Amino acid sequence: MDSSLEQLLEFFSKVGELKGLPRTGWVEAGIGEPESVADHCFRTSIIAMVLSDLQGHDTGRTIRMALLHDLAEIETGDLTPGQKRERGPLFMTEEEGAVIRLLSGLPGDLAESYMELWEELREGASPEAEVVAHADKLEMVLQALEYEEEGGCPSSLERFWSVEVGDGLPSDLLRAMGKRRGGIDG
Amino acid sequence: MDSSLEQLLEFFSKVGELKGLPRTGWVEAGIGEPESVADHCFRTSIIAMVLSDLQGHDTGRTIRMALLHDLAEIETGDLTPGQKRERGPLFMTEEEGAVIRLLSGLPGDLAESYMELWEELREGASPEAEVVAHADKLEMVLQALEYEEEGGCPSSLERFWSVEVGDGLPSDLLRAMGKRRGGIDG
Repeated sequence: MDSSLEQLLEFFSKVGELKGLPRTGWVEAGIGEPESVADHCFRTSIIAMVLSDLQGHDTGRTIRMALLHDLAEIETGDLTPGQKRERGPLFMTEEEGAVIRLLSGLPGDLAESYMELWEELREGASPEAEVVAHADKLEMVLQALEYEEEGGCPSSLERFWSVEVGDGLPSDLLRAMGKRRGGIDG
Repeated sequence: MDSSLEQLLEFFSKVGELKGLPRTGWVEAGIGEPESVADHCFRTSIIAMVLSDLQGHDTGRTIRMALLHDLAEIETGDLTPGQKRERGPLFMTEEEGAVIRLLSGLPGDLAESYMELWEELREGASPEAEVVAHADKLEMVLQALEYEEEGGCPSSLERFWSVEVGDGLPSDLLRAMGKRRGGIDG
């Protein structure tokens, strides 16, 4: 058996670990059986696809970045923004190393081209990277809203609303979520 | 508030329902707390992206199809191939109607263009549609393999291996999975 095939399979298995990784923010907010990181990545990719298509960006690049955006968490686990700040610059290096190792099993020049997209996303270096950053936050706020609608504690979920997203459609969507939140019977 | 914004938000919320929908095949195979449909769609999209990039297809189209491929399940639920056969041609109509309704809230010509992609996928009408069909099956077999590695019952998981995928890389990957299965201590 070709070892590159086994490496490719190993990459897909590693990616599958995101299905079993609960999002830490929800665990801390007291949500029982919260969504997985893979669940979050799926809807983030859908939101990024729609925003990118509506704004006329290169959606192939946008969705690739969205699908890869939490790849490092296979090794680092899902850290909250507070946990990332505690680790300081070390975390940036850990995260990058994790992605390099994970992608290294891909054939051809895929490892390099996906790594470039991942770096582009981290640096917010293109309109497509910005769309993914906004989609990532909007997905989280929408999930916070849905957990609150299902009976989650509003004060535990409050901090997820402290996000900044781009002007225009992302901001409009955030406002629409705030309006829907205002209508929750409490 | 613009009603089109509320409709867009409603679409994203509907998509989020796939996070809470367990894959029926695993429930029937006796897997406790199986993955969600969203989990499956996430890794299917990653596999489709990699296959499409390696084979030089239009990956933007491929991933859009992969992200949308189980959309109908928001309304129909996740039916096994056997359940689909029982419902007969009615199911095809139900499924199509569900996707039309779900996409109808999207602004501009997105509903139409995503519907075209969904139909293209259903009909296997392009190399990109074929890639997604293969990725969908490979993802399922890999998950069956992983459940077996975690102690799932081999005879309950046997039927998930009865798939046909395209020649070349998809077949090679399926064989690599079979080889890995052969190495499981039983």
